[in-house]
Amino acid sequence: MRSKINQAWIDHWLGLGNVVELSCPTVTPYAVLEASGHVGEFSDFMTQCGSCQEASRADSLLEAHHPNPDALKRDELQSLLEAEKPPCPACGMTDWSEILAQNLMFNTTIGAGASGRPGFLRPETAQGMFTSFNALYRHFRERLPFGAMQVGKGYRNEIAPRQGMIRLREFNMAELEYFIDPESPADDDLSAWDTVSFALVPDGKKPVEMTLEVACQQGVIRHATVARFMGITYDFLAKVGIDMNRVRFRQHESDEMAHYAMDCWDAEIEGSFGWIECVGIAHRGCYDLESHEKATGKSLRARREFDEPRTTLVDAWTIDGATAGPAFKALAGQVKATVEGLPKSTTFPATVALENGETVVIEPEHVKPNQRTLKETGEWYIPHVVEPAFGIDRIIWHVLDHAYAEQEKNGEAYTVMQLAPAVAPVDIAVFPLFEKEGMDDAAAKIHQRLCGRPGTVSMYDGSGSIGRRYARADEIGVPQCITVDHQTLQDGTVTLRERDTGEQVRVPMDSL
Amino acid sequence: MRSKINQAWIDHWLGLGNVVELSCPTVTPYAVLEASGHVGEFSDFMTQCGSCQEASRADSLLEAHHPNPDALKRDELQSLLEAEKPPCPACGMTDWSEILAQNLMFNTTIGAGASGRPGFLRPETAQGMFTSFNALYRHFRERLPFGAMQVGKGYRNEIAPRQGMIRLREFNMAELEYFIDPESPADDDLSAWDTVSFALVPDGKKPVEMTLEVACQQGVIRHATVARFMGITYDFLAKVGIDMNRVRFRQHESDEMAHYAMDCWDAEIEGSFGWIECVGIAHRGCYDLESHEKATGKSLRARREFDEPRTTLVDAWTIDGATAGPAFKALAGQVKATVEGLPKSTTFPATVALENGETVVIEPEHVKPNQRTLKETGEWYIPHVVEPAFGIDRIIWHVLDHAYAEQEKNGEAYTVMQLAPAVAPVDIAVFPLFEKEGMDDAAAKIHQRLCGRPGTVSMYDGSGSIGRRYARADEIGVPQCITVDHQTLQDGTVTLRERDTGEQVRVPMDSL
Repeated sequence: MRSKINQAWIDHWLGLGNVVELSCPTVTPYAVLEASGHVGEFSDFMTQCGSCQEASRADSLLEAHHPNPDALKRDELQSLLEAEKPPCPACGMTDWSEILAQNLMFNTTIGAGASGRPGFLRPETAQGMFTSFNALYRHFRERLPFGAMQVGKGYRNEIAPRQGMIRLREFNMAELEYFIDPESPADDDLSAWDTVSFALVPDGKKPVEMTLEVACQQGVIRHATVARFMGITYDFLAKVGIDMNRVRFRQHESDEMAHYAMDCWDAEIEGSFGWIECVGIAHRGCYDLESHEKATGKSLRARREFDEPRTTLVDAWTIDGATAGPAFKALAGQVKATVEGLPKSTTFPATVALENGETVVIEPEHVKPNQRTLKETGEWYIPHVVEPAFGIDRIIWHVLDHAYAEQEKNGEAYTVMQLAPAVAPVDIAVFPLFEKEGMDDAAAKIHQRLCGRPGTVSMYDGSGSIGRRYARADEIGVPQCITVDHQTLQDGTVTLRERDTGEQVRVPMDSL
Repeated sequence: MRSKINQAWIDHWLGLGNVVELSCPTVTPYAVLEASGHVGEFSDFMTQCGSCQEASRADSLLEAHHPNPDALKRDELQSLLEAEKPPCPACGMTDWSEILAQNLMFNTTIGAGASGRPGFLRPETAQGMFTSFNALYRHFRERLPFGAMQVGKGYRNEIAPRQGMIRLREFNMAELEYFIDPESPADDDLSAWDTVSFALVPDGKKPVEMTLEVACQQGVIRHATVARFMGITYDFLAKVGIDMNRVRFRQHESDEMAHYAMDCWDAEIEGSFGWIECVGIAHRGCYDLESHEKATGKSLRARREFDEPRTTLVDAWTIDGATAGPAFKALAGQVKATVEGLPKSTTFPATVALENGETVVIEPEHVKPNQRTLKETGEWYIPHVVEPAFGIDRIIWHVLDHAYAEQEKNGEAYTVMQLAPAVAPVDIAVFPLFEKEGMDDAAAKIHQRLCGRPGTVSMYDGSGSIGRRYARADEIGVPQCITVDHQTLQDGTVTLRERDTGEQVRVPMDSL
């Protein structure tokens, strides 16, 4: 099921036409995550029980005592902890250590012995795509916009994992980093969603229902690419079987949003745990590429050509050949190049270093003012990034939650998992009515033939009554079942049963 | 390309009809890998340069001084190192530390603070499948044989990674654990490979060419399931584009094989680095399940029903009601149950503990000999495992190596990557002859339509001459290219060009 959802996600976003799938290592050197800010910032506030040594998140302990302890600073949490003295959830004692910021990354050592270097398991897949920017830029023939996407594991050494698949230490995520030119108009086509009313919860305001187009026009959604990605996200969730009446998009409030983010919307899905954030769509500005550029000194930029070359008048200096020539002799050429690079504000005499490393003193009589025109056909800039990030496990959990239906059959409770065929882990089940008289062989043959088809998962089941086997198949969400009976041996037809309608039709087994 | 090869691998083995895909965590608790033997055994011998601190593998340093240093024990390596004094490959000095066994697993800590537990990144995907045995056994309705397979990352903190994709610290692997009943006949059908002559290098003997059937009959391959999996492996490698004239199967020599393994064959592929092991197919006996059973005390067994119930005569004791009744009164029932469980060799008087915890002394006059028949309809046993393990990165590397062809075109060197369509990362490229007069729009439309098709990767390229664009597509192995030209705008046809033949035909664009 996860394989199917991962593949559906890749296929869905490949539809953009200008994205490519990447796969980067999960073990990441310290320097990369230091540049991204994860080493410094990616932490939870933790306190430890002096009695049983169990670690707890300070904000979780204080949930009963504050409406939003998640937003508190360390000192505020510390005061509240001391005032409220919540008991340890493990042993019931109240003996908390001082609150410390605990980094959420799994650490390890890359290589052996003293030459080993520190590293972490990646907390998200994004960083590998930022550091690959230059290769991507070449791959796309230096034309923006383009995107890179990745499906894979992320790791957070949570202090308190909980709620099953909702908060895992090792989780499956899918991220797209879409690089855009901030100066090109954000005129993404939103017409595909003209008839869809989106449930939006704008930054600190009342929920509204409107189309993406209108939300953009009114400035509720601040960038058209963000809006388009919300539409594509909507389509994806519908495709994998999420009940779209239980999906809303919530905008981050400005104090909740990372300081560099320009807009951020979470797709939240309602299930047995309430509303849970499952997708985040963030306009991250130029933060990521700029951070890696600063840390490495290596350019991560794209070039923008001007419609018309731009000429600028530069006020500067040049040498006075009549005096500088005799004074500097063979070095005169280098002196000229150096002087022409000096700003107009330079005062002479000035001591300057030449290209060959020599230092010379330039007197006022060696130079004269110089005005030049500089013609530029384009410029280098740091692209902006719009990032849709999907929590695959959380989506799977909600797909199951929404597909689970308790019905009644003959006065007994009957469970059906109404999974969309696109995500059902078993596509079809094959049953022999009895495992004798050749029915088992015929069923096994059909099963083998279906198994040989790429992408089809067939299940053979010969134990128990047919009713019991249908019930087992319904319980795990198999969309279709085939039964081989006495008639099959005579005329080559089988019974095909649909999970959701219960309808049974006889079809020739060769047509399957 | 890796996504495609992974998916092709899953689809290929799903054809068995009785296997299921799993996904287990990569971060693995200490206890699991202690039980599997990895904590104790999974290591390389390392020495460190006293001058530059660089760590090196002792066997690598001594490659020039011994035919097979890999097989030497620690003390032998130590003596050889001291005798030969090889220079440090990093700094050239000769100042080696004592040789130590260095475990190859990446270590980390699961959870925070003092309650954190030690763990490792998994060195293989197999262990999660062994520990899931009981769930798998239920899933398959308690009928063997069945298999579980997994595609994912494995981690080895190699002291000296080298040869690009051949020896990585973080690698992609695909493993199948196939559980069989060792007492059921190994009569796997090998007829599908009757016409294929396999290049075999049997344990320490000369290479031979023979069919799998003959190799099994002659005892060269020791188990028919191993032979069948060699056949399925052969088909897979052919499907992804490996040149099958450069594949051989080499049997492990007995001293190279793990002590518990009953047979082991490597599929080796010849490429620019020589013959490299890319797949291992091992009959692992009952080693894995037995190890986990011992470590946890939890049964990992399957039940085998006897054709006929088996009755055995048991010589034992029972109580003599006439004497024991009055002696033990209300306890007589418990005394009877306890005495009937004692072996015939027991001597009386004997002090025994009853079920309720009380201790009683049983005198000779309380008991009399008793013969009972015990009827059993089946028994529990530890299944054996046959494991095909694929190194996905090594296979990708050889697919590229075999697909790479240098040709000549108009007197110039011309590179083509002749990838099989099943693995080519880009399926089709779309070119407008010129990016004007509507040709660019028409091409973009075709590109968008192809991108919307699940599983199809299309590439749009509008820069440079058509010849240059064909060359770029050939270089990355795109099987087909489409060109949109003036005629397209008139009659809706495009040019479709095949990479391998260079043939160009005009086809209606709606037929694509």
